[in-house]
Amino acid sequence: MLEALKKEVYEMNMLLPRYGLVTFTWGNVSGIDRESGLFVIKPSGVEYEKLSPEDMVVVDLNGNKVEGRYNPSSDTATHAVLYQRFPKIGGVVHTHSSWATSWAQAGRGIPCYGTTHADYLYGEVPCVRNLTREEIEEAYEKNTGILIADAFEEKGLDYIAMPAVLCKNHGPFTWGKDAKEAVHNAVVLEEVAKMAARCEQINPRVMPAPQSLQDKHYYRKHGANAYYGQEH
Amino acid sequence: MLEALKKEVYEMNMLLPRYGLVTFTWGNVSGIDRESGLFVIKPSGVEYEKLSPEDMVVVDLNGNKVEGRYNPSSDTATHAVLYQRFPKIGGVVHTHSSWATSWAQAGRGIPCYGTTHADYLYGEVPCVRNLTREEIEEAYEKNTGILIADAFEEKGLDYIAMPAVLCKNHGPFTWGKDAKEAVHNAVVLEEVAKMAARCEQINPRVMPAPQSLQDKHYYRKHGANAYYGQEH
Amino acid sequence: MLEALKKEVYEMNMLLPRYGLVTFTWGNVSGIDRESGLFVIKPSGVEYEKLSPEDMVVVDLNGNKVEGRYNPSSDTATHAVLYQRFPKIGGVVHTHSSWATSWAQAGRGIPCYGTTHADYLYGEVPCVRNLTREEIEEAYEKNTGILIADAFEEKGLDYIAMPAVLCKNHGPFTWGKDAKEAVHNAVVLEEVAKMAARCEQINPRVMPAPQSLQDKHYYRKHGANAYYGQEH
Amino acid sequence: MLEALKKEVYEMNMLLPRYGLVTFTWGNVSGIDRESGLFVIKPSGVEYEKLSPEDMVVVDLNGNKVEGRYNPSSDTATHAVLYQRFPKIGGVVHTHSSWATSWAQAGRGIPCYGTTHADYLYGEVPCVRNLTREEIEEAYEKNTGILIADAFEEKGLDYIAMPAVLCKNHGPFTWGKDAKEAVHNAVVLEEVAKMAARCEQINPRVMPAPQSLQDKHYYRKHGANAYYGQEH
Repeated sequence: MLEALKKEVYEMNMLLPRYGLVTFTWGNVSGIDRESGLFVIKPSGVEYEKLSPEDMVVVDLNGNKVEGRYNPSSDTATHAVLYQRFPKIGGVVHTHSSWATSWAQAGRGIPCYGTTHADYLYGEVPCVRNLTREEIEEAYEKNTGILIADAFEEKGLDYIAMPAVLCKNHGPFTWGKDAKEAVHNAVVLEEVAKMAARCEQINPRVMPAPQSLQDKHYYRKHGANAYYGQEH
Repeated sequence: MLEALKKEVYEMNMLLPRYGLVTFTWGNVSGIDRESGLFVIKPSGVEYEKLSPEDMVVVDLNGNKVEGRYNPSSDTATHAVLYQRFPKIGGVVHTHSSWATSWAQAGRGIPCYGTTHADYLYGEVPCVRNLTREEIEEAYEKNTGILIADAFEEKGLDYIAMPAVLCKNHGPFTWGKDAKEAVHNAVVLEEVAKMAARCEQINPRVMPAPQSLQDKHYYRKHGANAYYGQEH
Repeated sequence: MLEALKKEVYEMNMLLPRYGLVTFTWGNVSGIDRESGLFVIKPSGVEYEKLSPEDMVVVDLNGNKVEGRYNPSSDTATHAVLYQRFPKIGGVVHTHSSWATSWAQAGRGIPCYGTTHADYLYGEVPCVRNLTREEIEEAYEKNTGILIADAFEEKGLDYIAMPAVLCKNHGPFTWGKDAKEAVHNAVVLEEVAKMAARCEQINPRVMPAPQSLQDKHYYRKHGANAYYGQEH
Repeated sequence: MLEALKKEVYEMNMLLPRYGLVTFTWGNVSGIDRESGLFVIKPSGVEYEKLSPEDMVVVDLNGNKVEGRYNPSSDTATHAVLYQRFPKIGGVVHTHSSWATSWAQAGRGIPCYGTTHADYLYGEVPCVRNLTREEIEEAYEKNTGILIADAFEEKGLDYIAMPAVLCKNHGPFTWGKDAKEAVHNAVVLEEVAKMAARCEQINPRVMPAPQSLQDKHYYRKHGANAYYGQEH
């Protein structure tokens, strides 16, 4: 079942090591079939070089396995909640990519210091708090998803315009209209995280880019008046 | 038309990912045919691995497309102004290369800390201010070019001796006598930006290199008394 | 003798340059056969590209050569002590990998700032003191091993849960149930060391991850209740 | 003439880009034939991928070309002085490698923070002062060599035990018993420069490694009592 989606999710998982976003098995990509309400995700802890499309695991929106010979990623419950709460997304990525994880470990959101950031991520990338001991013990992975979605609601963030989050002392999640866009956003986030850290090193009193510049770059790529690229 | 130039500009665009200066489609190279007043530039938002020489777009000095099946780079109007205002240049490059962009985001010019810098860039690489909201809304890309050229005039900078600029909260532009030299300068700028940041980390009170050393290195490579290389 | 172990130790040594952990000959992996009490280690100062499985050297737990045409690694006596004092380990790795060595040179243990660290290393990676002049002159490499093992005892550290140590002004040692796991831990340590340094740069007042999060991640991968991966 | 030496010097020059020590043409290796008093050096400003052994230039100890179709490296006069003043060396390397150059630009010598440094470089790598305007104008490259050799004499440094120097606001020179060892030391210097910068970032109050540890590591690799490697 869902063979085309399995192939796509497999290929997107294989991009993670190619883009330098993962060491060993530290990352996972999923993609959803909204019609059936099922999503496809990487198995847990299997080496990338041994994966094949058939190894992808099919799970439902409660995170229960529907098909597959492997256990799904240990982060499956987080993906499930994100698909439930963010109904327009089609793909989710989690990595421990080095620079984004360093910001997550530092417990700070990533300010928008330039147009590379504004081209894809509208505003500061948020960093959500730690789960409490009780939340961890009750349902760690599921509560991670709930924490992210609640934070977006509380802060009034648009998950389409801000397809990325940092989990404190852990690492980033990104998403997009499909698995490919979610991986693209994971690469963007890592690059943006790197340049923001270096930029603060070069000028410790740096301020975010002017709102007018952020708006220009975001909206020349997104929305009704976009003119970047070939599809307008 | 301009087939040889298209091939050259294509090849120079392909060097950007090879030198590690671009992620995805974040960069563009153009080259001009001064006789016809037309220049050739990368199309907007097309992946590097899918480009071919025929995909290059021919535009005039007002940035209007003359030939090509794709839309030209969204930064075309900036290139056009630079060709108009800097009459001796033959190629222009824009990237979001990581270290140069970090300086641009920090809003600082790059001081000349050593001979690697002085060999190619005479003095501090300038960082121009943000455009105002009005300048952005009126004609963002064109006004970026005007801002750069005006800044060089106001500061009395020689665009031949300083073939690079940083745009605040955005990234670098470089240029040269042709597209190849413009790419070369983009690589130099990135390396110089990297070493300047690290050098300030190692010694926060570092001062620019003595003027006599800067002069020696710049003029042993440039001008009537140059003796570096094989062409003297 | 011990041909299978030689092959394994050879292959694990060859992973060090592949993972970017060593320059020139600056690293060594060993693996032990607990039944015979003999271990196999890389020869001293031989270039990686010239090594073959037959070049591996067999030594006893006093560090004396039992078989092999080369001298064993100059760090052999340290490996021998670690095998004696940590009876459940099957492999040991020493490198001068760049980030872990930078922490060792700085004389600091690596705090646990996130789940990447907690997934494999339970708590702060310890940094042991310098040997005294007398300890160095008496038996440098042997006393390095004794210093490590004594420090683990004094601090009440479990060498299974903390399979890594930094030697001040020198570099890291890691270990594991076999040579492969020891190499895996060397890669983890380098990545963790890199992110911890960057994380402190991004937030100089950063605190270690909450204990509840460290526990969750360590124990979802290790022990009776582990559920990460496929083997539960 | 000197065909074997040309081949060796050619091969050692080609190692510079392979080890990531040079961008474009920013580096040069030479090797000397002490019997004839002639040395072989890379031509000036020729791209590495276009070089062949026959392109190497033969010069005498005054830096005058004896054979070759190209101009020798613009740094030839520096090499010549080093060969004159350091009679036991057989090879010299100059690069603008990124980390070593960052220290040179910062105007600081590199303290010995660990055993990686002490294994090859005995003590702090010195950073020599800027040449004066007069010294630059009179004979820049020759006076660079004189400055280095004078500094070693004044500081009582043994050029065998310290085969590296930084020139302020410029970059490093290294040397060795032959061109191969000089390149090896250039790689060591870059690695040591990188780790020293990171180590100071991790602990701004870090102190050099204890002298007893520096002695142990230097002398287990060098001199009559060395026991590292296979040749003892």
